[in-house]
Amino acid sequence: MKQTISKATIERLALYFRMLKSLQENGVQIISSEEMGRKLDITPVQIRKDLALFGQFGMKGIGYYTSELVNQIGNILGLNNRWNMAIVGVGHLGGALANYKNFPALGFNLVALFDKDIRIIGAEVHGIKISDIKNLKSIVTKRKIQIGVITVPATEAQDVANQLVEAGVKGIWNFAPTKIIVPPELQIVNEDLSISLSTLSYYISMKFFQETF
Amino acid sequence: MKQTISKATIERLALYFRMLKSLQENGVQIISSEEMGRKLDITPVQIRKDLALFGQFGMKGIGYYTSELVNQIGNILGLNNRWNMAIVGVGHLGGALANYKNFPALGFNLVALFDKDIRIIGAEVHGIKISDIKNLKSIVTKRKIQIGVITVPATEAQDVANQLVEAGVKGIWNFAPTKIIVPPELQIVNEDLSISLSTLSYYISMKFFQETF
Repeated sequence: MKQTISKATIERLALYFRMLKSLQENGVQIISSEEMGRKLDITPVQIRKDLALFGQFGMKGIGYYTSELVNQIGNILGLNNRWNMAIVGVGHLGGALANYKNFPALGFNLVALFDKDIRIIGAEVHGIKISDIKNLKSIVTKRKIQIGVITVPATEAQDVANQLVEAGVKGIWNFAPTKIIVPPELQIVNEDLSISLSTLSYYISMKFFQETF
Repeated sequence: MKQTISKATIERLALYFRMLKSLQENGVQIISSEEMGRKLDITPVQIRKDLALFGQFGMKGIGYYTSELVNQIGNILGLNNRWNMAIVGVGHLGGALANYKNFPALGFNLVALFDKDIRIIGAEVHGIKISDIKNLKSIVTKRKIQIGVITVPATEAQDVANQLVEAGVKGIWNFAPTKIIVPPELQIVNEDLSISLSTLSYYISMKFFQETF
């Protein structure tokens, strides 16, 4: 059974999943909402409410079975599926992402890398050969790629997004610092470093202001 | 004059700033809220409301002066200040960040890189020498570093955060996929790739579910 859940709840579920998975790997079989709350700095009431969303109520005075939660949250987030993923733009950031170790644990298989720079096409990163972006469509089809990761400069991002959409991906993870337009049926998540930095800058400035004036 | 603004508004202001700055660089002197809205996929009413927060009302039927907005939003976000920043952990991600071109435009100067791996200490990235993490405290003081960026593995992140706090930074930008505890007077922004990926996975799964059942 699936239902629509708010973005804030999805993000909390992702936090629970990550922590529970690591507990499970360390042999912890049962955990209470109080203990989860302490580890994540979230109130136990909030945690119990979130878990009740999918019928998990825990055992009074004892807690939740770790492995059961991992399974159920994983199902809700679709992390028990396997998604095939391609990175477009193998510069510094694309290269760093290609080496990101947590993808497989979240159900993401990196199966292709694309670039337009003939000097790096054919080179291997993390065991995957960099392909010419000209072959994007045929490789996306052949390797059944559902997710495209955009790590090209902002000026090229929309063009790359169009190519990914035309090739038939279901979702885009955009790292380019620009607004990308995609058809409404496509999912897009923006990872915008300049927004995070601006937020940090704002809070530090406020702090300095309060201290100084 | 400064006031407390919600996180959602700060993130929108950061979006406005980025777009306006690029318009300004391209010689665009005046822009309407309708045009801003189209470019950013935000309603003009929302934009006018946000800008009115700091007394910007535009000129009826004409729009806003780009350079004035850039200045005022930059002031509010603290982006007209200069922040000295250090990256701790020069692996793939730390290296990619060290090469991130947008830092200076947002007022961030990368002035130090730290690692514990003796094989890379002394090497240069983007013109900055990698220092031994043992010298973190003295270098943070000497180079007046206010922001520490954490790009070490999750297991080492809290320890690095403690060292940064002790050295006197004002804010932390954390890329390690783990919860970091810092004193309440410190600002922390988490950049958690696994959360974004889980969100994308959830929405794509929902979509498949709706199509299949």
